[in-house]
Amino acid sequence: MSLLICGSIALDTVENEHGKVAEALGGSATYTSIAASYLCDHIAIVGVVGEDFPQEYIELLEKRNVDVTGVETAKGKTFRWCARYDDLSEAITLDTQLNVFEEFSPKIPKKFEGAEYIYLGNIDPSLQKEVLQKMNNTALIGADTMNLWIETKNKELKELLPQIDVLFINNDELKMLTEEKNLLKAANIAVEMGPKFVVVKQGEFGAFIYSKNMLFFTPIFPTTIVKDTTGAGDCFAGGFMGYLSSVGKTDEKSMKKALIYGTILSSYNIEDFSIKKVCKISKEDIQKRYEKLKIFTQF
Amino acid sequence: MSLLICGSIALDTVENEHGKVAEALGGSATYTSIAASYLCDHIAIVGVVGEDFPQEYIELLEKRNVDVTGVETAKGKTFRWCARYDDLSEAITLDTQLNVFEEFSPKIPKKFEGAEYIYLGNIDPSLQKEVLQKMNNTALIGADTMNLWIETKNKELKELLPQIDVLFINNDELKMLTEEKNLLKAANIAVEMGPKFVVVKQGEFGAFIYSKNMLFFTPIFPTTIVKDTTGAGDCFAGGFMGYLSSVGKTDEKSMKKALIYGTILSSYNIEDFSIKKVCKISKEDIQKRYEKLKIFTQF
Repeated sequence: MSLLICGSIALDTVENEHGKVAEALGGSATYTSIAASYLCDHIAIVGVVGEDFPQEYIELLEKRNVDVTGVETAKGKTFRWCARYDDLSEAITLDTQLNVFEEFSPKIPKKFEGAEYIYLGNIDPSLQKEVLQKMNNTALIGADTMNLWIETKNKELKELLPQIDVLFINNDELKMLTEEKNLLKAANIAVEMGPKFVVVKQGEFGAFIYSKNMLFFTPIFPTTIVKDTTGAGDCFAGGFMGYLSSVGKTDEKSMKKALIYGTILSSYNIEDFSIKKVCKISKEDIQKRYEKLKIFTQF
Repeated sequence: MSLLICGSIALDTVENEHGKVAEALGGSATYTSIAASYLCDHIAIVGVVGEDFPQEYIELLEKRNVDVTGVETAKGKTFRWCARYDDLSEAITLDTQLNVFEEFSPKIPKKFEGAEYIYLGNIDPSLQKEVLQKMNNTALIGADTMNLWIETKNKELKELLPQIDVLFINNDELKMLTEEKNLLKAANIAVEMGPKFVVVKQGEFGAFIYSKNMLFFTPIFPTTIVKDTTGAGDCFAGGFMGYLSSVGKTDEKSMKKALIYGTILSSYNIEDFSIKKVCKISKEDIQKRYEKLKIFTQF
């Protein structure tokens, strides 16, 4: 099956107690597609960059077999994000320069309109809806969102939710979206808003997936190396969507395994800045953590 | 095997958004022993009450087959604790009246000195050490602690740690004890302080157990009914110690299962105030949640 990923492509400047990177490869579409590339073939990315976007980053995506036909080069500069972490669980945005991303209107190359698996990175829900209008053969649609859209684009987000299958959201955002503190009740309310599944990301405490028919938890994959949490949620989605796209199934068992692969890809991501570590792993590394996570959870 | 539980016995007045109870049965030894009583026989409790302690509460313990020979009735009033919860994850203590608990010196009845499984509820580490000096046939010793002792009795706590097998602690307390933010590193430091295992309680995110040879995670047992979290950690310890005492084993597989039984007993506890709900369940109820938790975690 093919997986279409639409989202941001950015140059990130990130600083924390472990060091600093300047203008490193970032953006939700980038992280998600590179993470997914370890699990499935036929990945295409849709996004926009400026004329200053380094060619080496395009080559890095291509090297991971990500089809970049849908990456538009617009007049102007690439989206830039600058942040500091005092605590690795929360980024403090120091500067955001939307640049070419401000006028982004996703253009889906004709050849990708039949993609079965779609992932909508964390962008304006109006744009997420636009993408879906162009797709004609979807099997499973996943979408991420954030507090900003819950607050400022609530109507558009609620119009999107019945059109998607899996909503990716974190604890705080879920409570905000549903106005409910109990996570289980909140997940149920979210599902009643439209998506069949809600994947709730819980930072260092793992994640769970909820639908009317299933509930499944995973802890994080435990690691003592935590350098930078930027992109962890996007890599999670990449592992999740990549696995489902590879097996072409959306049954309960596959959804559980998808959550595990999401967990593992995000566990690699946090071990270094930007997408550095994820670019260095192998399929065998992933499988080893998969087996270890079994030992850590099966009784 | 027999399980000896030493800790507080209290009368709790607790208020939160779901209601209020006044002078309800509380205390770590109470919660732990009642929870454990569903999993093992031969449970004895050591603690102190005042002359005003209601006979019905003693009968409640006896009805659950908890041996109360070690419950001393001292001159004066029973330990009282009064708290309010604005958020169910954190109690705000309004009033503490130590009363007879202030002069508590655990007296172990001769017939319990050979108990194999020992649980030391959250009391002054000097008292916890005192109990251990009297025991002569231990197979496994578990102990709980808290921020107060980490701060005010650090030396005594660190003397206790090499004498116990399982330390029960929550996330924040673990970070405080070890001065390490990464939970995996922190658990390792805690184990280097003496106990073979550290059981880390993570509130609504479950728990994990760590030793030099094993790591195992459990989520909470998900429930939409959360009325009062008082005693959840004590019931967790009760399920954990009760299971180990029933099987008489401390191998890796048993430790994993113990963590699951701890999770399940605490999940019942939070469904009502005081020990009300835990007093109403059956062994079959527990087994049903055990099987459900398998479905929620196995892949």
